[in-house]
Amino acid sequence: MTDALLTAVQHGTDVIDLGRELRVGMPQSPNHPQFWHTLPRRHGDMTRADGGSAANDMITMGTHVGTHIDALAHVSQDGKMYGDADAQDSCIGGKYVELGVHTIEPMIRRGVLLDVAGLKGVECLEGGYEITVADLEAAEAAAQATVGQGDVVLIRSGWGSKFPDGAPYVGGPTGVPGVSEAGARWLAERKVHAAGADTIAFERLAPGAGHGLLPAHRVLLVESGIYIIEAIDLETIAAAGWGEFTFVLVPMPIFGATGSPVRPLAVRSR
Amino acid sequence: MTDALLTAVQHGTDVIDLGRELRVGMPQSPNHPQFWHTLPRRHGDMTRADGGSAANDMITMGTHVGTHIDALAHVSQDGKMYGDADAQDSCIGGKYVELGVHTIEPMIRRGVLLDVAGLKGVECLEGGYEITVADLEAAEAAAQATVGQGDVVLIRSGWGSKFPDGAPYVGGPTGVPGVSEAGARWLAERKVHAAGADTIAFERLAPGAGHGLLPAHRVLLVESGIYIIEAIDLETIAAAGWGEFTFVLVPMPIFGATGSPVRPLAVRSR
Amino acid sequence: MTDALLTAVQHGTDVIDLGRELRVGMPQSPNHPQFWHTLPRRHGDMTRADGGSAANDMITMGTHVGTHIDALAHVSQDGKMYGDADAQDSCIGGKYVELGVHTIEPMIRRGVLLDVAGLKGVECLEGGYEITVADLEAAEAAAQATVGQGDVVLIRSGWGSKFPDGAPYVGGPTGVPGVSEAGARWLAERKVHAAGADTIAFERLAPGAGHGLLPAHRVLLVESGIYIIEAIDLETIAAAGWGEFTFVLVPMPIFGATGSPVRPLAVRSR
Amino acid sequence: MTDALLTAVQHGTDVIDLGRELRVGMPQSPNHPQFWHTLPRRHGDMTRADGGSAANDMITMGTHVGTHIDALAHVSQDGKMYGDADAQDSCIGGKYVELGVHTIEPMIRRGVLLDVAGLKGVECLEGGYEITVADLEAAEAAAQATVGQGDVVLIRSGWGSKFPDGAPYVGGPTGVPGVSEAGARWLAERKVHAAGADTIAFERLAPGAGHGLLPAHRVLLVESGIYIIEAIDLETIAAAGWGEFTFVLVPMPIFGATGSPVRPLAVRSR
Repeated sequence: MTDALLTAVQHGTDVIDLGRELRVGMPQSPNHPQFWHTLPRRHGDMTRADGGSAANDMITMGTHVGTHIDALAHVSQDGKMYGDADAQDSCIGGKYVELGVHTIEPMIRRGVLLDVAGLKGVECLEGGYEITVADLEAAEAAAQATVGQGDVVLIRSGWGSKFPDGAPYVGGPTGVPGVSEAGARWLAERKVHAAGADTIAFERLAPGAGHGLLPAHRVLLVESGIYIIEAIDLETIAAAGWGEFTFVLVPMPIFGATGSPVRPLAVRSR
Repeated sequence: MTDALLTAVQHGTDVIDLGRELRVGMPQSPNHPQFWHTLPRRHGDMTRADGGSAANDMITMGTHVGTHIDALAHVSQDGKMYGDADAQDSCIGGKYVELGVHTIEPMIRRGVLLDVAGLKGVECLEGGYEITVADLEAAEAAAQATVGQGDVVLIRSGWGSKFPDGAPYVGGPTGVPGVSEAGARWLAERKVHAAGADTIAFERLAPGAGHGLLPAHRVLLVESGIYIIEAIDLETIAAAGWGEFTFVLVPMPIFGATGSPVRPLAVRSR
Repeated sequence: MTDALLTAVQHGTDVIDLGRELRVGMPQSPNHPQFWHTLPRRHGDMTRADGGSAANDMITMGTHVGTHIDALAHVSQDGKMYGDADAQDSCIGGKYVELGVHTIEPMIRRGVLLDVAGLKGVECLEGGYEITVADLEAAEAAAQATVGQGDVVLIRSGWGSKFPDGAPYVGGPTGVPGVSEAGARWLAERKVHAAGADTIAFERLAPGAGHGLLPAHRVLLVESGIYIIEAIDLETIAAAGWGEFTFVLVPMPIFGATGSPVRPLAVRSR
Repeated sequence: MTDALLTAVQHGTDVIDLGRELRVGMPQSPNHPQFWHTLPRRHGDMTRADGGSAANDMITMGTHVGTHIDALAHVSQDGKMYGDADAQDSCIGGKYVELGVHTIEPMIRRGVLLDVAGLKGVECLEGGYEITVADLEAAEAAAQATVGQGDVVLIRSGWGSKFPDGAPYVGGPTGVPGVSEAGARWLAERKVHAAGADTIAFERLAPGAGHGLLPAHRVLLVESGIYIIEAIDLETIAAAGWGEFTFVLVPMPIFGATGSPVRPLAVRSR
């Protein structure tokens, strides 16, 4: 059998991991249950007669932790979700049956990096900075990759460089850079499949303002059916200078959930 | 830019989802914390001043639930893990730092399906049946795909057709079909990268015998450094008759854990 | 200061523990998240500079696990909870604010044991046996303790002797002995404060019938505002022959929850 | 039957609740898994044929959350726990079998309140203030209740008034008032059964110093076998002016755990 995809894979690929390791204590939004991992059974606790032993894990977490994707069920506006679905009635037996994260198809698509921080020559945009349409278009030109229908667009503010610092990454007092309504509309007009950022909230947050208003979520999730990916690690891919690549993202198929931790990949033929 | 991989992707692909949906109440090994999902906040619980609301999730689970991958840290034999690592000392601060699931690289590789049930013309092998080396080689011939170094090999017993039934899939009283030591050695000799099955245990389990002896785990994880993938959904891919394909698997990068739920994909150019 | 209660306490008391130990793997209703306990940090994982270390725990569980109490918010009938409260509207922001377990006052009250199994001279009533009003009245006479307003009444079927066996205690195929609607009405007419049993369901369950109909829950929780306590360990107190005693029960004050694990006590002056 | 205790109970008692409600978002030590409560099933999600429905809960938490008790297994010094038990070997199969919280007997004992804040006429002692032996003795005199063997002693700093404020109660930057080694020795010499405080850490914490040194834990838990109770609500009992009372505390019997949330009570004859 000759399969163009498999042939390309077997000629060799470079993979850049865009996901954050899931570690106890990592920064996350206080709105969601903390990520915890622990080992109920360690090697040495119990050994079988033949000398074998198995260790295992227990996890508790929200789904909007680490690098994660928002399902369309995550956000409603004026009682409606995407497609005019009634937000309360859509929860059937405690599950979002139609718009939950299990309905997101795995993504193997063109990805485009819009490196706004790189464009401006800074390590990191300032807290509260709104990434404008002009910024997006300049970054698109720099990437030499026109954003098109069905693409996944990743917007780099550089804020991800603060992830190892913990609380500053969450950014309450300082605000967080990001697109707002105008940038979201630009993405929606290009009919992208999903949009991501290197921040927890994806959106521009004003200093001290918290998550009270989330216009980009409304435009993308509720009005346009476009998935949002948050807390992506864009530092390595920016350093590598990749503008266009194959983007791979496989959400956990959690029936009825509003989101999922993910580990997206950028891949290129070597 | 022309990138062979991206070009292949953009020409179109077919994707077969090999992962089980994560649902409360699905069958799983009783050794591991049950998968649970619940919504702490639903739409309607709290609405912001601007009419927006966000729903969210809480998950608790083991990592060896649903379709999942075993890290090398999962199993030890006579106090040692892969590479002669001391099984107790390797747990540092409650994390398997060197052999945890966070060390498994995302897989974009050649996959091969050995459909033993299909070969024998049965819906499902019997509980307790040992898949022999002869079975594997006959299935390999039928797949017209020689198993080679670095491949991911998926072995279908048909037992996955019982997954929707719940308890029978776990298979305590009936036993479960699978390879044993000989089949595992055959896989190890071919230097595969990972091996998977459509059962929870991967191994042949004798009726009523439980998980007391797991020779294939020992051969693959401890002696050979080969990952094991369990509870894969192989029904659709068998019906499609795919023998060879691009296999995509991205473990959750849970620092120090012994495994991870996964959603593997089989992909072909259209 | 002289305080009659403290004086009585200081003269010495005998305490019988009526609570089951919370252990991973203990029998519980499959409707509720399993009880799990694990140690994220053990001694040896991390030691402070001065030679000290602290170990800690992680718990996940439903609240109707182990010996537990049902809050009035646990059950509704025809859309109403106790006091004609609307069952859906009573959930405010994901919490049962008015009828949650946090509203149950700690109990230090007269307790009465109705030992129906003892009365009949059997170790255990049969699965599916309905404890009748005549049984309750005969047990009351045997206890030499008239059930009165405000008392906590504990009904022993002997089924608790199966607790260590695991699955048989849950009793799906066999059914479980207990009161049904008539017995519940008898308790409600006596205006007891709470009623308990040594089974998970409190009620008589027919063999194989599951939890489809729970008339005693309706009569007690919904119609009468009487709390239900389940999976009590009544073996020791029956052997001691106590009919009347001080009953102590302190629910965990979990804001908005439908129940709580508890560890009730029977106490007598020595 | 006449039972002095039951007679005292039936003459009427006043109960002061010393436990904090368990609420999502309440202040707790960041070392322990956060308390979370959510409702997997709400009324309205699923109704039985007869019109009945049941709502239920899922909890995840550490055990050192809310008002809680430390088992002797919680702390070790130089590799030893109380009674010279080896701290690592004492963990058998992931459980502290001998010194876990399941080994703490329910307490119905004399309690004494040492209201140091009240003694000094302040709402709250300052962060970092060390409660001295002289303070304890002056508070004891004010309580008109000599601390004796087997008593439970509750030390009020007034810091509990900050509990509703959240982060300030945890007190990292400010430090927290409490006893240190000298105060702990005074308690140990009096052979108290347990000692409690209205702070998370029980101990005096220096501003900004965190939990790096915990001498009172060492003296009480490791050297003396005296339980520690933390985050007690002492505001109401101080306002009531109770110095001596019956103290009731029933830990959750979590097999092998290092602590348990508790809801202690102070009780007096009316």
